[in-house]
Amino acid sequence: MFYVIGLGLADERDITVKGLETVRRCERVYLEAYTSILMVETERLEKFYERSVITADREMVETSSDEILKDADKVDVAFLVVGDPFGATTHTDLVLRARELGIPVEVIHNASIMNAAGCCGVQLYNFGQTVSIVFFHDNWRPDSFYERIRENRSIGLHTLCLLDIKVKEQSWENMARGRKIYEPPRYMTVNQCVDQLLEVEEKRGEKVYTEETLAVGIARVGSATQLVRAGTLAQLREVDFGAPLHSLVLLGSRLHYLEFDMLRQNAVDLEKLNEVIARDFPEK
Amino acid sequence: MFYVIGLGLADERDITVKGLETVRRCERVYLEAYTSILMVETERLEKFYERSVITADREMVETSSDEILKDADKVDVAFLVVGDPFGATTHTDLVLRARELGIPVEVIHNASIMNAAGCCGVQLYNFGQTVSIVFFHDNWRPDSFYERIRENRSIGLHTLCLLDIKVKEQSWENMARGRKIYEPPRYMTVNQCVDQLLEVEEKRGEKVYTEETLAVGIARVGSATQLVRAGTLAQLREVDFGAPLHSLVLLGSRLHYLEFDMLRQNAVDLEKLNEVIARDFPEK
Repeated sequence: MFYVIGLGLADERDITVKGLETVRRCERVYLEAYTSILMVETERLEKFYERSVITADREMVETSSDEILKDADKVDVAFLVVGDPFGATTHTDLVLRARELGIPVEVIHNASIMNAAGCCGVQLYNFGQTVSIVFFHDNWRPDSFYERIRENRSIGLHTLCLLDIKVKEQSWENMARGRKIYEPPRYMTVNQCVDQLLEVEEKRGEKVYTEETLAVGIARVGSATQLVRAGTLAQLREVDFGAPLHSLVLLGSRLHYLEFDMLRQNAVDLEKLNEVIARDFPEK
Repeated sequence: MFYVIGLGLADERDITVKGLETVRRCERVYLEAYTSILMVETERLEKFYERSVITADREMVETSSDEILKDADKVDVAFLVVGDPFGATTHTDLVLRARELGIPVEVIHNASIMNAAGCCGVQLYNFGQTVSIVFFHDNWRPDSFYERIRENRSIGLHTLCLLDIKVKEQSWENMARGRKIYEPPRYMTVNQCVDQLLEVEEKRGEKVYTEETLAVGIARVGSATQLVRAGTLAQLREVDFGAPLHSLVLLGSRLHYLEFDMLRQNAVDLEKLNEVIARDFPEK
């Protein structure tokens, strides 16, 4: 059997009991380590799972899926994914490939940032499509998220922004020269995300959002050091959210009075938050 | 500490290791038992958690929150929620109340149908707002979901429809007479959901969707008997999805060729599915 097992969000104990029992009886265990990360080292996972863990980078998953799936019709193989298995297309690809090979597949679900983002204090029901914000480079500043946010906001919905992580990436130069030298990992902060959002708004100028738009920054969701801060984009640009991973929820108009109370409990500055609520949601 | 612990989707072993360790050291353990259900009996949970479990029905949660929170500043109290804690407003209410009382709160996340719905084979990124479909009565046929679905579809997004469950509900007559007699539990099927969707489309007539619209019915997500079937609404109306819980994903236009492959693997009828894809997505 080929098991795709979600690990949840923070550490080795976020795996489900079913997931743990399963991984402990698998012959080979892979860890997908490029679309997200846990907040603990692989060694700690290995000790807890009582199994060696093979780190599967993007190259391995995209080019060596048959190696990962080898013999999975005869022995149990686990593919561990931070969060829930259905977060990224990559895993869909692997599941499709397994089924083509006649290998039975079982998925063990877990929390993902897509549902745990509810910790920001607003109802998940009113989230629209999710966007990815990738690191801007000198001459590569992809801004298709702007249309997606506009669409969401046009019907009052919130937008979950997932922030780029760069793990085992090559510089352009090393890639061009075929040198397998990798850059140190980088994780986008809420501050960088806000900078990029506002840069694109300035360029496009359609007032999809402004410095005064309410949003919630969330960091290390599900861990003991989780941080949730609600405020305007201008305020969140200045908050130190600490270690990765960070995400941002850009709020739409569909908010309920209970939700304002949750936002107030996490306000960067309660007075300012109340001003913005009074200004932007006068009927609440 | 007041712990709000997600139980995941199917059975007692879907709790996380962190959640299990926590519940086992709590003095009182409540189980929220009216917005969703697990597929196992409470006795099985009690045995596995090594704790008595107090069933908290809607009345208790909405009117006796202080009883649930009693002494939680001094002893550990667990409030168990099927899926993830942030699925329903009710729990937000309880968390707000705890914080008002100065009680520390910790949330232990888990899979929810909001992210596990990814098992239907399409990317979670392209889901819009979620809608609830409630059982129609003779003279109460709420159809505000129709606007929500229209909004989602107008920008190409999929819609997750969560289907009504009625647990410990009184009949109108028993409620009017103040008799605490409860009806047997009822869980909406995919078939009933499709009937209601099409009834409202017929009444409103804006062609937000039709009998020929593609959708995916999902049942018992995360369990060994999980069922996923993709087809037109007319087809899904006829499929027997078996025991609860059921959900429906109404597909939007934003689909990727890999996603069509996932849908094909779960087709009610592959030939018909290919016809619909060729007709509705000629460029794919």
